[in-house]
Order: sequence, then C-alpha cells, then structure tokens
Amino acid sequence: MRVLLTGVAGFIGSHLAERLLQEGHSVVGLDNFLTGQRENIAHLLRHPRFSFMEQDVSKPFRVEGPLDAVLHFASPASPNPDSPYGYPNLPIETMQAGSLGTFHTLDLAREHGARYMLASTSEVYGDPQVHPQPETYWGHVNPVGERAVYDEAKRFAEALTMAYHRKYGLDTRIVRIFNTYGPRMRLDDGRVIPNFLQQALRGEPLTVYGDGSQTRSFCYVDDLVEGILRLLQVQEPYPVNLGNPHEITVLELAETINRLLDNPAGVVFLPHRMLEGDPVRRCPDITKARTLLGWEPRVGLEEGLRRTIEDFRQRMGL
Amino acid sequence: MRVLLTGVAGFIGSHLAERLLQEGHSVVGLDNFLTGQRENIAHLLRHPRFSFMEQDVSKPFRVEGPLDAVLHFASPASPNPDSPYGYPNLPIETMQAGSLGTFHTLDLAREHGARYMLASTSEVYGDPQVHPQPETYWGHVNPVGERAVYDEAKRFAEALTMAYHRKYGLDTRIVRIFNTYGPRMRLDDGRVIPNFLQQALRGEPLTVYGDGSQTRSFCYVDDLVEGILRLLQVQEPYPVNLGNPHEITVLELAETINRLLDNPAGVVFLPHRMLEGDPVRRCPDITKARTLLGWEPRVGLEEGLRRTIEDFRQRMGL
Repeated sequence: MRVLLTGVAGFIGSHLAERLLQEGHSVVGLDNFLTGQRENIAHLLRHPRFSFMEQDVSKPFRVEGPLDAVLHFASPASPNPDSPYGYPNLPIETMQAGSLGTFHTLDLAREHGARYMLASTSEVYGDPQVHPQPETYWGHVNPVGERAVYDEAKRFAEALTMAYHRKYGLDTRIVRIFNTYGPRMRLDDGRVIPNFLQQALRGEPLTVYGDGSQTRSFCYVDDLVEGILRLLQVQEPYPVNLGNPHEITVLELAETINRLLDNPAGVVFLPHRMLEGDPVRRCPDITKARTLLGWEPRVGLEEGLRRTIEDFRQRMGL
Repeated sequence: MRVLLTGVAGFIGSHLAERLLQEGHSVVGLDNFLTGQRENIAHLLRHPRFSFMEQDVSKPFRVEGPLDAVLHFASPASPNPDSPYGYPNLPIETMQAGSLGTFHTLDLAREHGARYMLASTSEVYGDPQVHPQPETYWGHVNPVGERAVYDEAKRFAEALTMAYHRKYGLDTRIVRIFNTYGPRMRLDDGRVIPNFLQQALRGEPLTVYGDGSQTRSFCYVDDLVEGILRLLQVQEPYPVNLGNPHEITVLELAETINRLLDNPAGVVFLPHRMLEGDPVRRCPDITKARTLLGWEPRVGLEEGLRRTIEDFRQRMGL
C-alpha cells in the first residue's frame, strides 16, 4: 500500500510510519512540526519508500500519485497547560486540525479511492461516568470547558468521518487511542511518564499532583501500532478502543519508575494544577478490539518503561 | 449598531433581522438559501438599512465597512430525515456551517472589533438525562450517531467560540435555542408544528409518531428574539438557554391544534421514524436568562399558534 500519514513526526505517527515501512508499504509522511519533532523522522528520511511533505494539514494540499490509505494522526494531544506544546496553548490550531484537517484528509481519501483512518482519542469520553469505557459510551464532555478544544475537535472529527462513510460510502475507521507511552515522547509536553522519567533519571523526587490516587492505563506504543495495523485491514466504521486496560494509580507509577531507576529521592506531592475536567479515572474496555482484531497489549508496564528509559537516557545525554 | 447576521433568510434569522431594523440598527444579512427562503427576506430587501449578501458562510468572504456585531445563525436545523431540508440529508453542509462558518464569522468579528453571538441549540444536550436542562449540564450526545452532524457541529462551534474568547478576549456569547415556532417556518422541513398545522388546515388527521407521550416545549419566535436582543447587550461568554419551559406532550399539541382549527379529523398514530437518539423529553431551565436578562417567554402556546396559523393560511393559499 501507499499510505498518507499526517502527524508523521509525532510520537505515535513516527512509530506507525516505521512499522508501515517494515511491513513493505510506502509512506508519504506529512507534518508541520507544530508539536511533532524533526528528530523523530530523521532516520526515516533516508528510507527509499518514505517521502515527506512539510505541510499544515489545516491548509489545503494535494498529494501526487496513488494513495491506498489516508491516516489522519495530526493534532496537538497533550493536555498540559504549562507546556507550549499542550493543546490549551494551541487552541485554534487544535480545533483546525480536528475540523479542517479532517475535511482535507477525508476529501483526499475520496479523491484517491483510499481507505481512511481517523486517530481519535479516549478524550471523547471526557470525564467518564462509566468504567471501563466501551465504545458505545457517549462520553461526558463539557463543550465550553478548557479541554473542549481537543475533546470537541475529536468528537467533531468522528462525526465527520461517519458522515463521509454514510454519505459517500467511504471506507473509514476510527481508532480511539488511550494513553500511550514509549520512545520519542516529547520531553517537554508535560505528560506524566516523560516528567517522571526525567526526574528519576536526574535523581530528583517525582512530582505527583494531587494525592496520586487518580488512575491511568498506559499502553506501550508497539502494542498500539500493532492494533492500528490490524484495524486498517478490517472494515469497521464504528470506533474501536485501543489501549491497555491495566489500571495503575499515578502514585504506583511513580514508585515503579523510582524502583526501576533506583531513584532514592521518592515523590513530592503538589496541589492539582490540571485543567478542569481532568479525568479521575479512565480505562479502556477492549472487548471489541479483542473480538474484532484478535488484539490485546503484550508489553507489560515494566518492560515498556525499560525500553522507554533507554531512549530517554540517550536523548537527555546521560 | 451595524450587524452582520448569517442565516438571515432562515426562520429565526428573518425575524431577528426584522426586529434589529425596528430597533434602528443596520443589518447586513447573509444567506445561501440552502435551507433559508427568499420570501422570508423579500420585505426586508426594500429597507434602507438592510443589505444582503448571497454567500455560503462556509466559504471565505469579506464584509465592507464597519461591523459592531456578528451573529452566526446559519445552519440547517431540522432533524427530519424525510425532508430534503433536514440535516440528515445535508450532513457535510451542516458540519461545514458549524466549523468553517464559525471560524469565518469569528475571524470577521475579530477583524472588525465586533461583538459576537453564536446561535447554538438545545441539541448540544442530546438525549438528556437531566430535566430540565441547565446550561451547566454537559449533555448526552452520541458522537457517531445520525444526529451527530448537527449536535457535534454545534458543540464544536461552542468550543471554538469559547476558544476565541479565551485566547483573543473576543466579546462572545452563546445562545442555546430550544424549539421555536412561528410565522415563516418552512412548510416542508418536517417539523412537528408545520406538519400539524398543514394537516389541520386541510382537515386531515394529524400524524403522531409513536404514542405521542414524548414532550416538547415550544417558544414563540418573538419571545426568542427578545431574549437574543437582551443577550446581545450583556457580556456573558458562557451559554444561555432561551426557550419556553412549558412542557407539553406531542399528543396534547395535536389536540390543541385540532381544537383551535375545529379540525374533526383527530389524530393517527404511526410508528416512530425519527433518528436514533431523538430525545424523549427536552425542556429548558431558564433560571439564568431570568436572572441575567430579566427575560421569560410572554406568548402562550394558543396565542402563538393563532399568529402562526394566520401566516400558514396565507402561504398555503387558503
């Protein structure tokens, strides 16, 4: 297949491109480096089946030659208001990527007769009142809250993808991606695993916001990419959750990382500073992915963290 | 004030334009007649303070001269899948009006230093699980359901309006409009009051879908317009419900109309044919509008229906 992938220089996008190339596909990667990083694709630029377009997906663009699949993975995705790469500081760009970017990529898939995949998010469930979240849960999102620029942009993108499927018969799929981690995560977008790893690698105490009892579930990026590739091979227009259903508190995560890195500095607790609507708990119900794709995560948290630590050490020059 | 009003040829838009002109304002009206009707603005075209642009709000456009307010009221709004004017048959246009149309009008308000108002909808509450609905209720919307093209477009538009307010300090407001009725409603977009009135005026039985026990609350258009004008004068970026909290079952509505028109043909019951997610009950909590604007509806249902009937008689040539 010849695949267009937007957001190719992002954390997930770069892993997905790598895997597609490994499987023998050709990849046209697209990014404007708003939150993606050039170093994430430096090794891909030399690949004979990889080509790159520096392009904002929210501006109109054309792609020469045939396309068999269009994968729309471009968007700011960190909720951290303290990072310049968090979507609270990129509100208009985030809403453009979810609306204009989705229109443009859907139109491109139509023109090329290509299959389509939208990278959606567990954030469409908002601050959920149902645990774990199945795909049939309609979510609990404040449309005028501070997180709405991302959550509502992705809900819009899902609705638009379904509209193209229903109206034009476009062969679409929607993946709802839960928290994912691994090598190449930005060091500076304020997500919890990069923050903890950097602090632990420096021998500092890990900063836990709140009492650390909020739970998260973390999927290693290779597992996620495997699920995405499987979903690309089936025809299922309705959303599919991909994530790791193993729940862990933020405090347990901190303690695991300190143990893996022999960091004696422990943790410090600070008051919550996340956005209103920050979910207390979020965990995927992956029954559909198990049934439809025969997929489930294989990499345990400690193994995934070890692989991620290697990458962080190198990038931090340690 | 010089006011830009999109959707001016729509049912609500045309009444709003009329009232703004009566109050001494100038109105630049914009419509592409996708669901708006030329006859709704025929009488306005002769007004010295009214000018008209035939324009799709989803395409870029400019407005010459100063603007003090931008009111974005353009969108398909009927949920009826059997009407060519229902949004289920205009899915892409509906999502464009809510996204591109909102971007364009917000940018216009910024350029002109104008205040802004978004016409949102009770549909952002979806199929609500809380009755009546206060503005703080986050709603219950299926992002991939058949109604999502409208509901998610309006939720997106609300989130975007708040983003422009937060990022640029734009003086924005969001009105969540509940069911409204009155003269100039389309005869052919499949809404319940036009359907019932036409059947009763022809002496036919009124078609009730389901058992008629689903409730609705109907606000007469003059009351709504009064609320909109008041909201335009205050600074309140968060949404304000405008609607009539008087709940009535669809069957009671049918019987009221038959009584007002001395229609002996009664009602016939047919199976539900509305879209999945059609709300069983929806009713505004208007505490905020009462407190903030000193507003509440003044026109009772029978009086409002009588005024509407006069208009329908004329348009039906009876």
